[in-house]
Amino acid sequence: MPTAPVLVAKPESMHFAEVLPLRSGASIRAYDLSYETYGQLNADKSNAVLICHALNASHHVAGVYLDEAGQVKDKSEGWWDTMIGPAKPLDTNRFFVIGVNNLGSCFGSTGPMQTNPDTGEVYGADFPVVTVQDWVNAQARLLDALGIQTLAAVMGGSLGGMQALAWTLQYPERVRHAVVVASAPNLTAENIAFNEVARRAIVTDPDFHGGHFYRHGVLPKRGLRIARMIGHITYLSDDVMNEKFGRQVVAPTLPAARGSLPPEGAAAPADRQSRIRGPGLDGMGAALANVAPYRYTTQDVEFQIESYLRYQGDKFAEYFDANTYLLITRALDYFDPAGEFGGDLSRALAQARAKFLLVSFTTDWRFSPARSREIVKALLDNQIDVSYAEIDAPHGHDAFLLDDARYMGVVRSYFKSKVTI
Amino acid sequence: MPTAPVLVAKPESMHFAEVLPLRSGASIRAYDLSYETYGQLNADKSNAVLICHALNASHHVAGVYLDEAGQVKDKSEGWWDTMIGPAKPLDTNRFFVIGVNNLGSCFGSTGPMQTNPDTGEVYGADFPVVTVQDWVNAQARLLDALGIQTLAAVMGGSLGGMQALAWTLQYPERVRHAVVVASAPNLTAENIAFNEVARRAIVTDPDFHGGHFYRHGVLPKRGLRIARMIGHITYLSDDVMNEKFGRQVVAPTLPAARGSLPPEGAAAPADRQSRIRGPGLDGMGAALANVAPYRYTTQDVEFQIESYLRYQGDKFAEYFDANTYLLITRALDYFDPAGEFGGDLSRALAQARAKFLLVSFTTDWRFSPARSREIVKALLDNQIDVSYAEIDAPHGHDAFLLDDARYMGVVRSYFKSKVTI
Repeated sequence: MPTAPVLVAKPESMHFAEVLPLRSGASIRAYDLSYETYGQLNADKSNAVLICHALNASHHVAGVYLDEAGQVKDKSEGWWDTMIGPAKPLDTNRFFVIGVNNLGSCFGSTGPMQTNPDTGEVYGADFPVVTVQDWVNAQARLLDALGIQTLAAVMGGSLGGMQALAWTLQYPERVRHAVVVASAPNLTAENIAFNEVARRAIVTDPDFHGGHFYRHGVLPKRGLRIARMIGHITYLSDDVMNEKFGRQVVAPTLPAARGSLPPEGAAAPADRQSRIRGPGLDGMGAALANVAPYRYTTQDVEFQIESYLRYQGDKFAEYFDANTYLLITRALDYFDPAGEFGGDLSRALAQARAKFLLVSFTTDWRFSPARSREIVKALLDNQIDVSYAEIDAPHGHDAFLLDDARYMGVVRSYFKSKVTI
Repeated sequence: MPTAPVLVAKPESMHFAEVLPLRSGASIRAYDLSYETYGQLNADKSNAVLICHALNASHHVAGVYLDEAGQVKDKSEGWWDTMIGPAKPLDTNRFFVIGVNNLGSCFGSTGPMQTNPDTGEVYGADFPVVTVQDWVNAQARLLDALGIQTLAAVMGGSLGGMQALAWTLQYPERVRHAVVVASAPNLTAENIAFNEVARRAIVTDPDFHGGHFYRHGVLPKRGLRIARMIGHITYLSDDVMNEKFGRQVVAPTLPAARGSLPPEGAAAPADRQSRIRGPGLDGMGAALANVAPYRYTTQDVEFQIESYLRYQGDKFAEYFDANTYLLITRALDYFDPAGEFGGDLSRALAQARAKFLLVSFTTDWRFSPARSREIVKALLDNQIDVSYAEIDAPHGHDAFLLDDARYMGVVRSYFKSKVTI
């Protein structure tokens, strides 16, 4: 069997010397954007597709990286590699695809970890608040620099979908199609609440130092871990969590052996199945005759779901910037195109000129199908061409990053049949 | 109009000198339980109803406290005062109602804040892990001491409902009715996950000191605040949060005035309605011409939901014990009567002899109606008499503590028509 061709990605960076005014009234004097491109821009420059990322992703959307010996780096696939590449739903044999890291992020574009040219100090908490609209303006300048006037499509999931929607409102003449996946016209109070708890965990971590932890040589990892754990719970569905973890314990042991627990992930003791007799209280029913194989601990891991969440939190705290977390969750909170039209989304979307594909997932409770349907309805109110797919997938919000055949089929078919170049 | 009679509550305490063996294999040598009673025990001692509390409640279930001058103390109503009292759904003119604070709690019963008689030191993290079954055994001893052999009913919501269910399995001959509100036969992985994040926030607070913060003269308030904020989000429904808070901001101000924000809750500036012109970027659509009245801040409060959650978190951190939080959430995690029957809830409930009333609330996503229906089905499988009401209420899990007419009506009618004395 022939091996599928490997798409090799190469990050690039573009410097912008012109001041970028921000929606807050502040501005960024000069900045860099990291980006990657896949496929070839055609002579008409009519086949460009911009990919917008969500909370913790980057410009590395598709393909893999090579090491110095020319070998594929382990686990270096882009975050939407299932979606984008040669012969994939968004086919890089046909389209020129651009991934860009947003301002304020921590993967190469100008953000809180970098030096403020005005002060010579690391930005930290002084990095200005950026919004979805600001990101779109910065992305538009990158397109200018690449010589691309009009996008065949702009595409994103979750917060990325908000950017795709904002593109059609801020630059209606520059977008022919918008693909908005697992997104919403704004956050509900509950979503803002989850963001706020995550931010409080970070900000109240004593190692946060008001956002200037860099100069103290520490990182607010406790807060980042909590933030990520909360995030993970809300990205999954109750169903998929029950299926994946249920009430499984990590390594059951006998209460008598609590002083010498096996390390996490170690094999369960051979006597795992042996049950202990209860303490024989008078009046206790049969239900107490057996004791479940718990460790009976309040601080150690007991259930597999706990182990999973701790692992995800630890991993995240190693690579993600705390100030970026605050900025990006705030961009989510602030996004609300209807807000300037008295809450009337139909009026807000009236200026869009693009055609749309909306996709949502049935078990996504963070960005539920109902929220996508609000966008669909507002587009229809304006006689805008919109296709909508509600995918019956068990994976919650995470589904937009996963390889679901129906989901991939819908996107493939949309690009094939509707997006001309 | 005559004033309704005031039910005056008076907390009492009972000492137990006999060792209580615990499900973990550990034991408590001696302990006290705080409790309150309302109404009169009849001559047959056949009208007693035990109320079991959930996470942060106590023995103070109904009535009010008086101050030294004999005046009603402000906001001293018991946590289920809407439900229990003279002429209320659980009528204390007819029933003798008992509220009891569970072992490991922080409202008077023996718990982590008290001295371990074996060491002379405050228990702290050394307080043994207690389970729903252990609580039921301790409650049974309180009934013994009060001379009550059989309960007319045992009743509780949420974790309290789990105790009511456990009563019917551990002491089937001592319970004639069980009223199980907004509860579940066990926690799902998602619920365990929320508990675990809350615990991690507490345990990783540097002021927690492994659970021995008392001797350091500090309290892990940061962790408690985060724990409570997470809890509050999950007790409410998305709908009620949107209705109550939506995307309302606290006190919008102009970006130019960001250096001198009004205090939280202060009146909005007079020019609140004046909108600021956007920075006039080329290519920006009409959506950017106006700027929403945000402060543009990542660390300060922007939305009302944030202000509400911070307030709730602050309040909770002032009065609740961190080790108690860990213990009680663990009791929730561990409860799983079907676990000892290979997950077969019908077999687990076969030993129950009580009649049941189950109540759930449509918007409760933490203890959803589907979980109550599992219990109903298992009871029906055993030909046990069960009434079930699914109340269409918008308030999420919190609904079980609120004064909903249909909910109150169902409980009133059950006690009136089914619970003989």
